[in-house]
Amino acid sequence: MSKPLVGIIMGSQSDFNLMNDAVKILEQFKIEYEISVLSAHRTPELAFAYAKSAVDRGLKVIIAGAGGAAHLAGVTAALTPLPVIGVPIKSSNSIDGWDSVLSILQMPSGIPVATVALNGATNAGILAAQIIGSSDKDVLNRIVAYKESLKEKVIKGNEEIKRKA
Amino acid sequence: MSKPLVGIIMGSQSDFNLMNDAVKILEQFKIEYEISVLSAHRTPELAFAYAKSAVDRGLKVIIAGAGGAAHLAGVTAALTPLPVIGVPIKSSNSIDGWDSVLSILQMPSGIPVATVALNGATNAGILAAQIIGSSDKDVLNRIVAYKESLKEKVIKGNEEIKRKA
Amino acid sequence: MSKPLVGIIMGSQSDFNLMNDAVKILEQFKIEYEISVLSAHRTPELAFAYAKSAVDRGLKVIIAGAGGAAHLAGVTAALTPLPVIGVPIKSSNSIDGWDSVLSILQMPSGIPVATVALNGATNAGILAAQIIGSSDKDVLNRIVAYKESLKEKVIKGNEEIKRKA
Amino acid sequence: MSKPLVGIIMGSQSDFNLMNDAVKILEQFKIEYEISVLSAHRTPELAFAYAKSAVDRGLKVIIAGAGGAAHLAGVTAALTPLPVIGVPIKSSNSIDGWDSVLSILQMPSGIPVATVALNGATNAGILAAQIIGSSDKDVLNRIVAYKESLKEKVIKGNEEIKRKA
Amino acid sequence: MSKPLVGIIMGSQSDFNLMNDAVKILEQFKIEYEISVLSAHRTPELAFAYAKSAVDRGLKVIIAGAGGAAHLAGVTAALTPLPVIGVPIKSSNSIDGWDSVLSILQMPSGIPVATVALNGATNAGILAAQIIGSSDKDVLNRIVAYKESLKEKVIKGNEEIKRKA
Amino acid sequence: MSKPLVGIIMGSQSDFNLMNDAVKILEQFKIEYEISVLSAHRTPELAFAYAKSAVDRGLKVIIAGAGGAAHLAGVTAALTPLPVIGVPIKSSNSIDGWDSVLSILQMPSGIPVATVALNGATNAGILAAQIIGSSDKDVLNRIVAYKESLKEKVIKGNEEIKRKA
Amino acid sequence: MSKPLVGIIMGSQSDFNLMNDAVKILEQFKIEYEISVLSAHRTPELAFAYAKSAVDRGLKVIIAGAGGAAHLAGVTAALTPLPVIGVPIKSSNSIDGWDSVLSILQMPSGIPVATVALNGATNAGILAAQIIGSSDKDVLNRIVAYKESLKEKVIKGNEEIKRKA
Amino acid sequence: MSKPLVGIIMGSQSDFNLMNDAVKILEQFKIEYEISVLSAHRTPELAFAYAKSAVDRGLKVIIAGAGGAAHLAGVTAALTPLPVIGVPIKSSNSIDGWDSVLSILQMPSGIPVATVALNGATNAGILAAQIIGSSDKDVLNRIVAYKESLKEKVIKGNEEIKRKA
Repeated sequence: MSKPLVGIIMGSQSDFNLMNDAVKILEQFKIEYEISVLSAHRTPELAFAYAKSAVDRGLKVIIAGAGGAAHLAGVTAALTPLPVIGVPIKSSNSIDGWDSVLSILQMPSGIPVATVALNGATNAGILAAQIIGSSDKDVLNRIVAYKESLKEKVIKGNEEIKRKA
Repeated sequence: MSKPLVGIIMGSQSDFNLMNDAVKILEQFKIEYEISVLSAHRTPELAFAYAKSAVDRGLKVIIAGAGGAAHLAGVTAALTPLPVIGVPIKSSNSIDGWDSVLSILQMPSGIPVATVALNGATNAGILAAQIIGSSDKDVLNRIVAYKESLKEKVIKGNEEIKRKA
Repeated sequence: MSKPLVGIIMGSQSDFNLMNDAVKILEQFKIEYEISVLSAHRTPELAFAYAKSAVDRGLKVIIAGAGGAAHLAGVTAALTPLPVIGVPIKSSNSIDGWDSVLSILQMPSGIPVATVALNGATNAGILAAQIIGSSDKDVLNRIVAYKESLKEKVIKGNEEIKRKA
Repeated sequence: MSKPLVGIIMGSQSDFNLMNDAVKILEQFKIEYEISVLSAHRTPELAFAYAKSAVDRGLKVIIAGAGGAAHLAGVTAALTPLPVIGVPIKSSNSIDGWDSVLSILQMPSGIPVATVALNGATNAGILAAQIIGSSDKDVLNRIVAYKESLKEKVIKGNEEIKRKA
Repeated sequence: MSKPLVGIIMGSQSDFNLMNDAVKILEQFKIEYEISVLSAHRTPELAFAYAKSAVDRGLKVIIAGAGGAAHLAGVTAALTPLPVIGVPIKSSNSIDGWDSVLSILQMPSGIPVATVALNGATNAGILAAQIIGSSDKDVLNRIVAYKESLKEKVIKGNEEIKRKA
Repeated sequence: MSKPLVGIIMGSQSDFNLMNDAVKILEQFKIEYEISVLSAHRTPELAFAYAKSAVDRGLKVIIAGAGGAAHLAGVTAALTPLPVIGVPIKSSNSIDGWDSVLSILQMPSGIPVATVALNGATNAGILAAQIIGSSDKDVLNRIVAYKESLKEKVIKGNEEIKRKA
Repeated sequence: MSKPLVGIIMGSQSDFNLMNDAVKILEQFKIEYEISVLSAHRTPELAFAYAKSAVDRGLKVIIAGAGGAAHLAGVTAALTPLPVIGVPIKSSNSIDGWDSVLSILQMPSGIPVATVALNGATNAGILAAQIIGSSDKDVLNRIVAYKESLKEKVIKGNEEIKRKA
Repeated sequence: MSKPLVGIIMGSQSDFNLMNDAVKILEQFKIEYEISVLSAHRTPELAFAYAKSAVDRGLKVIIAGAGGAAHLAGVTAALTPLPVIGVPIKSSNSIDGWDSVLSILQMPSGIPVATVALNGATNAGILAAQIIGSSDKDVLNRIVAYKESLKEKVIKGNEEIKRKA
């Protein structure tokens, strides 16, 4: 078993159900990953250490999901030169998801976070694969095939609807 | 000169003009303070060390101002048991200030940030004084006097307007 | 039994379920409190009297929760030199909580309200404890311990997820 | 000179320029008014007394203008059985006016504020006139005439534009 | 039976459940009213005729409730010199109620609508009573009594909560 | 059977239930239509080809429904000189529908999309009929009759409510 | 000179500068138009008469621009079977344009308004041309040519930027 | 000179001033790039061809900036397996930037766009470098050095402010 290339982190155990969508994508694309619960607010030292050691542990990309005032992605991005993908999560007591979207997206100049759609863990997984695929022919080919499968699903949907209408 | 009780930190030098409003209030209330530029994203180690050492250095309250995806207040609150006051700043490229308001206000359960109004550095200074005043009779009296002065200004405004109208 | 240090007030009896989260925290931190239903709009005289007498009755902090056009925290802050913590509540007919958030947060210069997240009664309790803890070593130590317990919960969550994945 | 029927109040002297639009309308409609600077937050006792005495002093309507977390209209409405018209004002540091709009509009059941558009002091004056006009034939006729004058202005505008185009 | 003083209109039969709250208040205050379904968009001629004839039919105030792009209150206000109270309704497919709030509130200079909170039909009824009460001592006294009853309900809630806590 | 005049397209099969409202209207107005599932993101080539061939296939109007970052209407409008009607759909994970509303409505100068209300598929069908009706007397007459039927429904609702009240 | 096919109406003379963009497009596409200032709120009878007579006067499309609580497009759509294009205008005192966008876009089922982008008068003109072009080959060809010219402008921009970079 | 690794595209020539920030970063990181003006709406065929050929031309990442209903990033992402970075641009007539933020961010499942902050072209350049750096040691080292330089700037700012205060 090779070393993980993608680190998936999330602010709370309750985010797992959603973030598991990223796991499924990475498994489908045969990309090694590791998964951790790490909170920028409740375990800042661990989050700090995780981000600082990411390059040396061989990670290529980090996916960070969090809700509300979601600082995990930004703090991680502050501490690693790797690309960090942020997944805004609409948690309970969120103000319609705007809080996590804006606290992940609106990073200051110098420290980007690659933000995906609200609850977009699947897309975070695909984006991680695309980043790896940009220098890995095999992964790139799997992405091409995946996009082809999306196409087929739409075409089948089209046929079904034409039958219904 | 006694040790600072209030630590004022801000994400960027460009926030000083605004955050100086908090300084003026603390000087008016005769409360010792210290002021630092510290970025959760550009100097995470320094921000980390600052927050971790705050109690031991004798601080009673921290005021943190930042714009955009403003993580400074939250990350500081994660690392100190002291009350942290957050000042959302409407920086350029802010989405109308919503980004800094929501990334400071919407902290997860367990790690509060005492958030004041957008650009409310004056109020952050007063709130810091109120926190100190809750166990310091002299400061409390100065707050009472300050509130009296606000009243007088309104009463004077009232008289001027009645003359004009 | 010692005198209450924290006054918890709320605009309506229906806010009790939520505001009880602040009660639980204060009990956990062994801080005496009192709790009242008081409306800035329906019992303005009582709200007025409550705020005016707060210092003399020995309170150190007031926590005020209200929904919609939430004026209770602001009106209380107008009438006491004590720090006032505002809890925006997402009541029915609220416009997604924005109304209570903005009517509590956006206080004018001179009269701050320490605002916490939407429905953030737990955090209001913690913030009250932090304010008291800033001059009370015992309470400060309990906050340190509380933060440690948050950490452990995340670490346990991390272990469980690693087992699942 | 007869007693004022309309009380115009505003949270700060700086609101006078805007609130003067209501004055102009009332003068045009020959309705007696009084004007005061009164802050729910900086002069709560005065605001309180003003609202409590309004009926006995012969007022029929109160117009209250304020910005930010604008509590003046609501607090006044809490303390008088008279109709209170609220004018949300877009002050500096306002979050695009949303704060004053929502803190005036979203009053809880039992205590309405008749809210007009952002910076709508002219309309507040007209609404006050309409309220008085609903039981005063002369004022009602002046409103009818005023509406006729609005019509003529549009018709003239129409003619000018047809010439231009 | 005397002539109705308040006209309650609504854009759709489905708004009746909500608008009935205004009916209940008017009955409680012993104010005669009439109720109609009238759409600015589906029955513009009827809405037009209703508003034009309102003064002559003896109405003193009109309450108009509508959802989405809610034009009923504004169009009615355009056609009568009487005060028009607008009730924004959060209908299905509404964008969180913002559409009806803004289309009722943000009337242009010259044609005010007295807007109440989202779904605030009760408050619309009270405001109508206050408008009538501003020139009718009996109604004014009923409002005073009503406000007293609100107070008592809060005081009872306070007592219950103190027992619970 | 004559050639379809209206092309109804949607980004996903799951949009069919909603978009079927447009179908029903077109059938009621006896306007030939075709219906397809086509995604700007998952089947860009098909969407491209569809739009490019629309004029030659005899279509007069295209209705495009999509949710989230909804590009289908805009991309179609880019590739055809025909009027394109956009239906913003509030899909799961949408940020309250704002995303699809703004990505359909805010088209740059030169490439309009005729946007209808959130989930407004019925109105999209009517608008398509109106466009065809602007040069087809029969369809125009059916629209006039349809508007009459709306009126009658409101009048019946009015009668029912008067009976209830 | 032939009869106008497009009626351009606007709520106020001050909207002419913006709405003139629609005029320029119609002239470029050689489509006859008429232009009027008509307010749903200040000249409701004229707006009413205009819309009612539109079909008989030979109009094919109406473009209605208005700001704030913008009811002109909706009220016009209520009174004519013709397609009505709504142009939301960001007037002074607008709440960032949201008010006019939502009061034009969110029309109830049965009465669509074809809404274009905020201040999108140019696009309103193009959409009107597309509606006419859907049954007029010459106009359709001019739209095709217009789209070609947009393309060329981008291509020229591309060349200039490649030289600069 | 080696082949470009990063393609920078923008919807309009007027976006160049902003998008040039990405250029400067790539030059600083010594990464070859190409720059083009390409509109999803005005030159759909060119945008289509650009995206389809990107992999074969050797690109590793695409940066797409656009304002309003910004479809360029999404349409490009639909047509390439490469990672696409989206830069929301606050253009004139934008609704405060929300339109471009949401039309870039809220991509449907399957087709991610790595979105950066409003007007965040600098961060888009850095993110592109991080993506390349995840498999290129030299670029990674330059990012580490860049982050060090950000740190030094903050430390210098800190010193200046301490001198001032």
